Amino acid sequence: MVNPPEPFPDLDWSPERARALGDAALEMYEEWLRRLPDLPVDRGRNAAEVSEAVHLDVPAEGLRDEELLEYLRKLVFDYSMFPGHPGFLAYIVGGGTVPGAIADLVAAGINQNVGGWRLSPGATEIELHVVRFFAEQFGLPDEAGGMLVSGGSIANFIGLKAARDAKSGAGVRARGLNGRPQLVAYTSQEVHFATTRAADMIGIGTDNVRLIEIDDQYRMDLVALETRIDEDLTAGLRPFCIVASLGTVATGAIDPLEPIADLCARHGLWLHVDAAYGGPIVLSEDLRGLAAGVERADSIAFDPHKWLYTPQSGGCILVRDIAHLAESFSADAGYVYEDKELTGRGIDLGMLGPQLSRSFWALKVWVSLLAHGTDAYGRRIAHDVALTRYLADRIEASDRFELAAPVGLSICCFRYAPPDLPNGGGREEYLDLLNERIMAAVQMDGRVYYSNAILGERFVLRTCIVNFRTEAEHLDQVLEVTEELGAKLDAELRPTHF
Amino acid sequence: MVNPPEPFPDLDWSPERARALGDAALEMYEEWLRRLPDLPVDRGRNAAEVSEAVHLDVPAEGLRDEELLEYLRKLVFDYSMFPGHPGFLAYIVGGGTVPGAIADLVAAGINQNVGGWRLSPGATEIELHVVRFFAEQFGLPDEAGGMLVSGGSIANFIGLKAARDAKSGAGVRARGLNGRPQLVAYTSQEVHFATTRAADMIGIGTDNVRLIEIDDQYRMDLVALETRIDEDLTAGLRPFCIVASLGTVATGAIDPLEPIADLCARHGLWLHVDAAYGGPIVLSEDLRGLAAGVERADSIAFDPHKWLYTPQSGGCILVRDIAHLAESFSADAGYVYEDKELTGRGIDLGMLGPQLSRSFWALKVWVSLLAHGTDAYGRRIAHDVALTRYLADRIEASDRFELAAPVGLSICCFRYAPPDLPNGGGREEYLDLLNERIMAAVQMDGRVYYSNAILGERFVLRTCIVNFRTEAEHLDQVLEVTEELGAKLDAELRPTHF
Repeated sequence: MVNPPEPFPDLDWSPERARALGDAALEMYEEWLRRLPDLPVDRGRNAAEVSEAVHLDVPAEGLRDEELLEYLRKLVFDYSMFPGHPGFLAYIVGGGTVPGAIADLVAAGINQNVGGWRLSPGATEIELHVVRFFAEQFGLPDEAGGMLVSGGSIANFIGLKAARDAKSGAGVRARGLNGRPQLVAYTSQEVHFATTRAADMIGIGTDNVRLIEIDDQYRMDLVALETRIDEDLTAGLRPFCIVASLGTVATGAIDPLEPIADLCARHGLWLHVDAAYGGPIVLSEDLRGLAAGVERADSIAFDPHKWLYTPQSGGCILVRDIAHLAESFSADAGYVYEDKELTGRGIDLGMLGPQLSRSFWALKVWVSLLAHGTDAYGRRIAHDVALTRYLADRIEASDRFELAAPVGLSICCFRYAPPDLPNGGGREEYLDLLNERIMAAVQMDGRVYYSNAILGERFVLRTCIVNFRTEAEHLDQVLEVTEELGAKLDAELRPTHF
Repeated sequence: MVNPPEPFPDLDWSPERARALGDAALEMYEEWLRRLPDLPVDRGRNAAEVSEAVHLDVPAEGLRDEELLEYLRKLVFDYSMFPGHPGFLAYIVGGGTVPGAIADLVAAGINQNVGGWRLSPGATEIELHVVRFFAEQFGLPDEAGGMLVSGGSIANFIGLKAARDAKSGAGVRARGLNGRPQLVAYTSQEVHFATTRAADMIGIGTDNVRLIEIDDQYRMDLVALETRIDEDLTAGLRPFCIVASLGTVATGAIDPLEPIADLCARHGLWLHVDAAYGGPIVLSEDLRGLAAGVERADSIAFDPHKWLYTPQSGGCILVRDIAHLAESFSADAGYVYEDKELTGRGIDLGMLGPQLSRSFWALKVWVSLLAHGTDAYGRRIAHDVALTRYLADRIEASDRFELAAPVGLSICCFRYAPPDLPNGGGREEYLDLLNERIMAAVQMDGRVYYSNAILGERFVLRTCIVNFRTEAEHLDQVLEVTEELGAKLDAELRPTHF
């Protein structure tokens, strides 16, 4: 007779206790939603202060639920900043859908591991439906596929890894890159660093990503691109991939997708489209045309947590032919053996990407799509663009703001320029300094919140609307606050020689 | 006068509507917790059936909340399987803490992007506290650091990438791997494929991961390891890293960490410890000693979503010196400019790993630690081991089960072997077949759920307890169900020559 150990149920909370803590958390969320427009976007605290405020020694005995809630309230209301605030217009960070947040509770509650079909039957099939929906929106063929991932950086990494493995000759996964012709990728100077970082991660090196010159619309210059490919071919290198941006991070520019696709076809290159920001325009009747050519991509990365507004974080990688993901990521392992003929089970998504255990990222995206519908999504995305045009028009009509780049999607780059500031004499350098200080002051002020871009050598202010709570009044406030703080800083900072 | 567009608030749900949907979701979670012990772990459905059941065309107009809830109920109760079920003992997939699930609602609600400090002040500082807590538990020095990531595969990838960049000579991030001495890593035959896949991802190739022979405890053989390093050095290759397992995936074996650390010191190799499964034993007074030597690692990967039971998904990478992550992942980008001296802001975690936008993965881990406390955690982890010993003892006392490997941590590998089965005549091959079919039958049956390992060439059944709801009665049921289905299958399958 073998004696069993005494039960130890301490971590197994009763349904009642779970409900009580959940109720309190939900009440806090409701309160936060109600107070959100009146809270500052950010409180401008410093690191030491925040670190101390949220510090706790992990206790030997668990906190009481009231203590835990008190702590969470402090975190939420006093030590967080709010990308969902209507005045938040920075960095292409989405607002965070309400049904998406609730979906995350459901996903975490039932704790599906979407790495294996057997561990997540409904979740895996939902992810496949989500992927199919997006593949159709982008106009990809039936054999296209893909998956949700933890963010756009990983989505772009997967695209480049699949490109590397498809284009660098047999055996690269087994034997590595050494001793093969040097792979070279092409993209524009305006590309997000996710692409160069991915080139580093897959081992080809950031120097082997050619940053091609841009035209006056911040789009990749096709002549420069083709010239560079020819030079590299002549030098014995192996061009393998062009990364086109569908919505650059700084200005929202869209690279000329059709001619780039032609070039890829001519040279046998992989076309990867970084659509992290701009991808969702395919959901808008009015904007879809701007993405023409994306349907010719070999892979597309985009971020539901940006312009589909879903909570952090969740990206998506689509490939023209799902076989490419299997070829680039499949693995054998005895400890996950199964006989699918016997069980009738479906695809294991953990075998098609870099992660075996996987979150049910798809649920918040799927639930957001179902709850809001494609009409509202498409119209809101177009509305973000309309709002941005409104801001740009106001800037152009003003004598103290300058539009700094063409407005394509929902990004507006501009500068505050005091009307009495004379031309010449280091004017542009002074405006760099002044606008840099304005950005910091606006961010610390907390009524609205935006970020910046560096265009050429100029420091410019940059708003990006991927926030379904933003309306024209908040853009008016952007200009008011900028002018108020700008005039004050100008009085402090302007050199005497002006 | 510039005319503003009409507001479009359709996606901005009222606090009341958010609360109502949240209440309904929470009620469903409470019901699910109540019914969980009586639900089947899995319903054994096939892919076509599930795919159809969860399919919906994304509607033009959003679903009504009741329709959405109806759909979610179907997903939760009819088309999911449950790693949190007390009878779930498969694949090292954690049960999913209750406070962790509620933390995910809070994190998704306020939608912190933990890539930049300015976007997530409290969240970033909490993540740093979590990392510091774990670094201390593992005995790493003060300059250690790290981050939460989307899972163990990515955590192992980051460790190997940091090792690659530290050991392959200057300029590897810029110029890539080509033309450098071939890097070689060492690990045991029992390693999880996350390591070989990471070697592929970073460009050194899976063949350049040496899978060293194991001893009779399934631990890396030190003599074979050292011999292989010497051979590779003689061949002009560049050994750079040893990956030791703290808890192998198949049997829970712990590689001899101290002598491996000595070997690393002697040869200047990076010591990466894949502690994805076993890492949390450092929280248990009773078990901590088994991890002696882990404090000498250059990097450690482990998974809170495994043996810290937190919901899917969240891994953790720790490095001995945080500078290594900055050196391996830092990037410059004008569009995330800031003057930290002016603002007093802290560390941007997006610059220390592969992702810029990042989830608030840390909250579910932090809240679980705070809610349960270190005592209960340590005791439950030790309890999982005690339960596993109980199962092993029952197996050893039985005439129809065979223990297939030594029990170190909370994994038990065993076979069903009918007592009247004669020795010889292909007995072992028949038991492979029989046990393979038993696993499938048990999984489709749904009362309990376990998986398998391949040990040598033998197919064995494998239970793993990383589930705080499992008690001795469920292990008794494992043996009962296995015996019941095993006897039935044996009657069907046994060849006549026995």
